[in-house]
Amino acid sequence: MKGMVEVYTGDGKGKTTAAIGLAIRAAGAGLRIFIGQFVKSMKYSEINILEKIDNIEIKQYGLNCFIEKEPEKEDVEAAKEGLNEISDILKSGEYDLVILDEANIAVYFDLISVEELIEVIKKRNEEVEVVVTGRKAKEELIEIADLVTDMKEIKHYYQKGITARDGIER
Amino acid sequence: MKGMVEVYTGDGKGKTTAAIGLAIRAAGAGLRIFIGQFVKSMKYSEINILEKIDNIEIKQYGLNCFIEKEPEKEDVEAAKEGLNEISDILKSGEYDLVILDEANIAVYFDLISVEELIEVIKKRNEEVEVVVTGRKAKEELIEIADLVTDMKEIKHYYQKGITARDGIER
Repeated sequence: MKGMVEVYTGDGKGKTTAAIGLAIRAAGAGLRIFIGQFVKSMKYSEINILEKIDNIEIKQYGLNCFIEKEPEKEDVEAAKEGLNEISDILKSGEYDLVILDEANIAVYFDLISVEELIEVIKKRNEEVEVVVTGRKAKEELIEIADLVTDMKEIKHYYQKGITARDGIER
Repeated sequence: MKGMVEVYTGDGKGKTTAAIGLAIRAAGAGLRIFIGQFVKSMKYSEINILEKIDNIEIKQYGLNCFIEKEPEKEDVEAAKEGLNEISDILKSGEYDLVILDEANIAVYFDLISVEELIEVIKKRNEEVEVVVTGRKAKEELIEIADLVTDMKEIKHYYQKGITARDGIER
């Protein structure tokens, strides 16, 4: 069956966790999952569990989160290398579900272009389901996506000065 | 540390999967997680994996999804029994993260009242993190929540006539 393109974007909490949930669901159904991370949005806590699940593979291509600093040459190289690898993975059909975690952020910070990202997605083995996460999804990506959820932040406790907690935010 | 109240609502895809992701993250950090489901929104695929993780416990209180039929007396009883059990669990502090999956839907269909739900949440051991999912979160719940993400459906392939697929939607 033809795989869809799902995009989870917006400023609210829940994009990467939703992708993790999709990976768990797919793994439970015996599907093979590849998670490529363009920015280290997943934390040791969840990777710890995901790595123990036989049919989930995770690879990190991102070096930084670009909150405190601008991307450097090595960030661009890491992202481009990641997109190349994912391109091969998507063509091969070796995985049923491929998650490009924070790929929108990699585009937003010009590490990769939205055209490159879309080309890689379009040239996939057509049975592969693709999930793209990250704030600031470009209109061009939304255009070619089959499903888009915009996670709107209505309230966030960061506003109350609560910092990241182990097992909850990281 | 004081636990927060997180609400994931809206019509878009990603609410229950985000809750699963939170459970995986918390489990990876060694926290203890209880997932109470008021409607069978989680499918065998993911439950299959979640049940294998030592520190995650799942219990279903919901009988139906109310898409095709109206709730009956036994649905109300199951939801009320669920809320009672969760009330004890929240007071005990035995779990660090308690997920009330689709509790908003249980409120929307008048199986439980929003006042009952809020009372149970407020009377918890204050260290417990609470996650409530489901469309149609009531304003009163949003009011007392620390974090609210509204998952807006921008595009959905159901519109294209794609039906549920194993490992992807179920």
